[in-house]
Amino acid sequence: MKDKPKFAVIGGGSWATAIVKMLTENVEVVGWYMRSVYAIEHLKRQQHNPSYLSSVEFKNEQLKLTDNINEAVEEADYVIFAIPSAFLHTELKKLNVSLENKIIFSAIKGIVPETGLIVGEYFNEIYDIPLDNIGVITGPCHAEEVALERLSYLTIACNDAEKAKVVAAHLSSEYISCKISDDIIGTEYAAMLKNIYAIAAGIAHGLGYGDNFQSVLMSNAIREMKRFIKKVHNMKRNINNSAYLGDLLVTGYSVFSRNRMFGNMIGKGYTVKSAQMEMSMVAEGYYATKSAYVINTDKGAKTPIIDAVYAILYDHKEPKKIFKKLADRLD
Amino acid sequence: MKDKPKFAVIGGGSWATAIVKMLTENVEVVGWYMRSVYAIEHLKRQQHNPSYLSSVEFKNEQLKLTDNINEAVEEADYVIFAIPSAFLHTELKKLNVSLENKIIFSAIKGIVPETGLIVGEYFNEIYDIPLDNIGVITGPCHAEEVALERLSYLTIACNDAEKAKVVAAHLSSEYISCKISDDIIGTEYAAMLKNIYAIAAGIAHGLGYGDNFQSVLMSNAIREMKRFIKKVHNMKRNINNSAYLGDLLVTGYSVFSRNRMFGNMIGKGYTVKSAQMEMSMVAEGYYATKSAYVINTDKGAKTPIIDAVYAILYDHKEPKKIFKKLADRLD
Repeated sequence: MKDKPKFAVIGGGSWATAIVKMLTENVEVVGWYMRSVYAIEHLKRQQHNPSYLSSVEFKNEQLKLTDNINEAVEEADYVIFAIPSAFLHTELKKLNVSLENKIIFSAIKGIVPETGLIVGEYFNEIYDIPLDNIGVITGPCHAEEVALERLSYLTIACNDAEKAKVVAAHLSSEYISCKISDDIIGTEYAAMLKNIYAIAAGIAHGLGYGDNFQSVLMSNAIREMKRFIKKVHNMKRNINNSAYLGDLLVTGYSVFSRNRMFGNMIGKGYTVKSAQMEMSMVAEGYYATKSAYVINTDKGAKTPIIDAVYAILYDHKEPKKIFKKLADRLD
Repeated sequence: MKDKPKFAVIGGGSWATAIVKMLTENVEVVGWYMRSVYAIEHLKRQQHNPSYLSSVEFKNEQLKLTDNINEAVEEADYVIFAIPSAFLHTELKKLNVSLENKIIFSAIKGIVPETGLIVGEYFNEIYDIPLDNIGVITGPCHAEEVALERLSYLTIACNDAEKAKVVAAHLSSEYISCKISDDIIGTEYAAMLKNIYAIAAGIAHGLGYGDNFQSVLMSNAIREMKRFIKKVHNMKRNINNSAYLGDLLVTGYSVFSRNRMFGNMIGKGYTVKSAQMEMSMVAEGYYATKSAYVINTDKGAKTPIIDAVYAILYDHKEPKKIFKKLADRLD
């Protein structure tokens, strides 16, 4: 490993912007790929991302902006992906630069819809990246609070602890505290599952359930998450660590979470399609629900919450009835 | 046990009112003691508690109201205490009726300040009530949501499962779901400790920490709670059950919690005394902090959050500095 590893961030959204901000606290130049030429021009002229975390000011000399993913990847040792999982497949098709010898960190929370794989598995199985070169950056962390420099904690997971340490060192600052983990599968599944539970929290809220129910739902969700992840990847982990429980809470209790908002609309009577149209985007948890449900058909963990959300989103069952049944299964 | 056990509720506040409401769904007459003659008269004339959960309508024929605690206790098989722990000592001094053969359930969340004991221990040690006749009613449950008949879950803990079942059966309804537990010590300590963590959440909020930090704080709090309770009473329990984690969350995330409000004022720069005067009451967690700290001097669990809150409330250390140190100890 070189003394000064080079980083590239792939993505132009709020989480990508937050990660670039973290990196600029520690490195001289960050490679930054985004699709929008308009946003790149705006950043160059105004030093702000026009659409996301627009209060964050960057220095021109610290950013190497490009709308060519190959350029960004080519120059980097560490490539951090922070785009919606639904776009990953398409973006990677543009690559003609090899990912061999690149260290890939995923800041994506979700399933690659085309494959049903979590991002780490996807890079490993489809791109033949060795597991030691794959890592995960996970919260609990709203990007908006990074913009405000409010103290936030990240977990950096990689089989190869040295690489996790490198990433952690380059993301840490006065307002970012990083913890290392070797559970890349578990942290990534947790990040994905929490979006399903956020949808469930939203549905409950939309149906008129209150804070008492919400706390019981979250208490059941973390136990369900533990059972699910144990079936997928059995190792010793404390499910109450920030990367699992903390991440569940920051999303499940956030009124700004898109997944919770999506659920809320479903609970209030929108159809799945109309809720998606209204939001002009698809919440990550929508795909995650199907993948988790399908994965669990083999694994057989007891997952009443995932089952309920699946029945509502994919079997188009009535939310009120399904949640009445779910409520009887919670304790 | 008689077929139709008689219940008395001790207390006139919101939680007592909620419990009386739950009981009236199942029993013909509930004995109800409160100090305020005015409130009793109002209830008799208007069928509402004038000061707490005033939207709840009672039927005169279902309430046996009295301002004499002896009368209420004498006629009851099950006596449910739902008064602030700070008043328990004084109220019990009024008793000349024996508590022998009474089954005592505590819906009090806290420490009896005069003794440093949790309520179950207090009845056992000071009043010689056998442990089999002592139980705990615990949430997660805001009384306000019981008034609205929003689905809520209670945990009813007693060494004697039969007695827990009797209480559970008489509290359950369309909107109340009860679970049985044999962990009276653990559930009661959890209910007490959560108030300390709610103060911590309030302090953090008052100091300007955000949702990312809050989720990490709660994730650390549940691990700390587990270590503490294990030291006090080691038995097999799932700390993520609703009575522990759920109860922590419903309080720690509630903007209405008095403990959280108290902490918030401290974080914003009020002194302990002025915050207490401003609130015209003492938050339960204030006493709980001292008791937990003292208990843990012997037990030696790692409790950075309790230590931090103690340093601020009792050693009058500066919240900002203490929380900066605390933040370094969280992960």
